[in-house]
Amino acid sequence: MLPMEVLERAQLEMISYRDSGMSVMEIEVGSPEFKEILADTEEALRKLMNIPANYRILFLQGGASTQFSAIPMNLLSSHKCADYVLSGQFSKRAYDEAKKYGDIVIAASSGGASPAFSTVPITKRSDFRPDADYVHICMNNTVYGTKYHYIPDTGNIPLVVNMSSCICSEPIDVTKFGLIYASAQKNMGIAGLTVVIVRNDLIGEARSDTPVMMDYKLLLEHNSLYNTPPIYNIYITKLVLEWMLSVGGLEEMKRRNERKASLLYDYLDGQSYYTAPVDKKCRSMTNVVFITGDGELDKKFAAEAAEQGMINLAGHPSIGGLRASMYNAMPYEGVEKLVAFMKNFAKNNPRL
Amino acid sequence: MLPMEVLERAQLEMISYRDSGMSVMEIEVGSPEFKEILADTEEALRKLMNIPANYRILFLQGGASTQFSAIPMNLLSSHKCADYVLSGQFSKRAYDEAKKYGDIVIAASSGGASPAFSTVPITKRSDFRPDADYVHICMNNTVYGTKYHYIPDTGNIPLVVNMSSCICSEPIDVTKFGLIYASAQKNMGIAGLTVVIVRNDLIGEARSDTPVMMDYKLLLEHNSLYNTPPIYNIYITKLVLEWMLSVGGLEEMKRRNERKASLLYDYLDGQSYYTAPVDKKCRSMTNVVFITGDGELDKKFAAEAAEQGMINLAGHPSIGGLRASMYNAMPYEGVEKLVAFMKNFAKNNPRL
Repeated sequence: MLPMEVLERAQLEMISYRDSGMSVMEIEVGSPEFKEILADTEEALRKLMNIPANYRILFLQGGASTQFSAIPMNLLSSHKCADYVLSGQFSKRAYDEAKKYGDIVIAASSGGASPAFSTVPITKRSDFRPDADYVHICMNNTVYGTKYHYIPDTGNIPLVVNMSSCICSEPIDVTKFGLIYASAQKNMGIAGLTVVIVRNDLIGEARSDTPVMMDYKLLLEHNSLYNTPPIYNIYITKLVLEWMLSVGGLEEMKRRNERKASLLYDYLDGQSYYTAPVDKKCRSMTNVVFITGDGELDKKFAAEAAEQGMINLAGHPSIGGLRASMYNAMPYEGVEKLVAFMKNFAKNNPRL
Repeated sequence: MLPMEVLERAQLEMISYRDSGMSVMEIEVGSPEFKEILADTEEALRKLMNIPANYRILFLQGGASTQFSAIPMNLLSSHKCADYVLSGQFSKRAYDEAKKYGDIVIAASSGGASPAFSTVPITKRSDFRPDADYVHICMNNTVYGTKYHYIPDTGNIPLVVNMSSCICSEPIDVTKFGLIYASAQKNMGIAGLTVVIVRNDLIGEARSDTPVMMDYKLLLEHNSLYNTPPIYNIYITKLVLEWMLSVGGLEEMKRRNERKASLLYDYLDGQSYYTAPVDKKCRSMTNVVFITGDGELDKKFAAEAAEQGMINLAGHPSIGGLRASMYNAMPYEGVEKLVAFMKNFAKNNPRL
């Protein structure tokens, strides 16, 4: 979902951007208009996330999956060694990809939990190899509905984090990370833009066969303009970031997200028709997984909810069940409506 | 530029796509709505370009520059050998990138022409190594204003072509090529989408360290949905392709583009104030390069034209001069206005 204010602004500027007589979609990469959009987007993100000056920001294409390759290609040093923590599907994909480029080990995994990945690993510094070039985690696990509620201590080893599904959902201390990456489509825009926030000292040691569009140093030298960036997607992200700033920044996003999550989790915890399988200490604020315990009932639930305009409540195809995703733009009223529907569904579909 | 019909449709569907109550920008990758958009886009492109069934189509991110790496990574066989023809800046970039991955040679170049790259090389089959995995060309050279008006004979060697700035500008015989790639922002959409059209038999031999998002076989197995694709950018391309079909397809695009190009080239050929430095046999239909012969006058021309709403007439920063880009959506009236301005400028700025 996107905030209605953003959609209305985008609609207004579709035909003529600021009286230029030109659609935002027609703005050229070399124009002053686009330079301003790019600079404004970076400024808004720096302000919102309180990103220090020793971190650079890249606006890229290709999704988080492209960073699964780019991160080892750029961050592995000559001895090529990194530690990955597995907490779900996307951290597994990142690990599988990194193995192409070096000596990669699984430092910890919650895959053995019951059910699998219903928690995130609690790690300590000694879980990581002292000579690892970096440690990789996925902060919020969309498929399993879990989230890190602590930042792992990795000592001097840079911590790399996939924040695709929780970036800008709450304040975060950027200085605890060496590199933060996120695709834009969950909380800060639409698919087609990926943001990489990387500490200065980690830039510049890419393998010689790194594809040009994955070489952080080169891309930063060109300020994300080595080739034509996804101009419209950046523009939408600018609108979303400025909307967040205008309503109170990440403190306000956190307050709203906690309020929505509490409503749903409190309901789940106070009844027995639905089960929330995730470890309470690791619950995601944005992806709430639950089951009826009966696969057919789960399907009926998703279908009837869709009829009432609540789409996408089926769980990820790989695990089934049900899942409510409540990103920044989802209003509290949407969750109220969902809980009311859940109560009715439970009443109307008694289990034998 | 985009056709006004496309902008108006995009504006209309910004808040609610087909009465779904959901913006096109909010459509989920797994939804029936998006599956239909993706299928419609592919169908429109196949129909428009007459793409045979033994060619697959990928909708990707990262621009043509990402394909500069992906092409050698996927198409070089075990002996890793390919021939590149240089006809301007982007073919040079493609060549430099490919050198990371194999034995790459320059089979021909127009870099030695005077001025450099003012023509495209005329090659014959014997110019290429018989064991080359592929031959690479750039069909339209935006910086220099040249275009291939013939398709090189490469015998059995697959011909790979960058069509970023001329795709869908005229009918083309797809079967003459092994692989066609193009970023969408010139003729068929907005920045953030890249289309790859690849013959079946060239898929599946990627190097083992190919990044996951560059592995054609894997991406095709997932029908461009290995990760979330740039949904909105694909939607805009669908609208543009359907617009082209609705007005008469590529025959009509060619008629319009030739008519626009003739108007400008005929004027250039009939006067002596401006010079068109490009070899007449290789003139681009879409990028018309010209100079006054005086760098300061060129700058004055671009500045005064911009004041009258004709922006982007300065030549590429790397070569200077002037350049008019006339992609599909530019109307004939826009070129008429430019020619009238050129006549006035010549009259008002006599050279000593």
